[in-house]
Amino acid sequence: MNQRDIKRIQKMLQNRDAMVASVNEAGFPETKAMFLRQIDDVHIFWFSSNVSARSTGQWAKNPKASVYLVDAKSVTGVLFTGTMRVHEDAETKKAFWKVTDLQYYSQGPSDPDYCMLEFIAEHVRVYHWGVDQKEYTIEAFQEALRS
Amino acid sequence: MNQRDIKRIQKMLQNRDAMVASVNEAGFPETKAMFLRQIDDVHIFWFSSNVSARSTGQWAKNPKASVYLVDAKSVTGVLFTGTMRVHEDAETKKAFWKVTDLQYYSQGPSDPDYCMLEFIAEHVRVYHWGVDQKEYTIEAFQEALRS
Repeated sequence: MNQRDIKRIQKMLQNRDAMVASVNEAGFPETKAMFLRQIDDVHIFWFSSNVSARSTGQWAKNPKASVYLVDAKSVTGVLFTGTMRVHEDAETKKAFWKVTDLQYYSQGPSDPDYCMLEFIAEHVRVYHWGVDQKEYTIEAFQEALRS
Repeated sequence: MNQRDIKRIQKMLQNRDAMVASVNEAGFPETKAMFLRQIDDVHIFWFSSNVSARSTGQWAKNPKASVYLVDAKSVTGVLFTGTMRVHEDAETKKAFWKVTDLQYYSQGPSDPDYCMLEFIAEHVRVYHWGVDQKEYTIEAFQEALRS
């Protein structure tokens, strides 16, 4: 990966705007804009969500997911495919809780409709102009982004 | 649909930036930014693409697709699910050809790597803040957007 790509992707990860996709019960893909809450090791992405949300229910049944980051200016895209795990346990919910979450989950960290989503990437592809693409192993991607 | 939503969605359709999703052979959803070439009847979306593109091959095998339009400012999203058809015939390719396409398909309208993609929406959902959502029939959506 060249230095220009590395800088762009580091910025995209900082922006934290992600397009997250699930597969619905009829087998159709569904994309949704979500805000990245936390990134671990450049390949584990955390999101907060509602248990009642359509996508949460889809991932509970079929964990296959993707996270897509895109920079419109340079038309650079990074597509991660992997699995999404829904966490409804008190410990995980408390660990990520912030006071500002009250606007979404009025009952606080124990709100039964609040959950955390953990996406673990298995593959990553970097696209230029939507066509030219290169696949990296998670290890090679981590290595490049850490440099 | 209220007047504010109608105006927002009309603007989103004019912007023509779309997040288009496919399902890969392993069953994982994949999202990709694409530019909407033409919109027919507020539910048929045309894109130009490469026959050799990863997503084109995925739709040729599994036509299940979605088109997602999103306005980051108002966090309004419109998700269309439906099917993607790959057109490689000379007639369709000629009908959509523009001189500026030469930068992508150097051999002109008969370039064997140039194809047109036709997405026909079957369902449409309007999201606010990623959570609150309402489903419309294609007919009701067309009616609202034409008004």
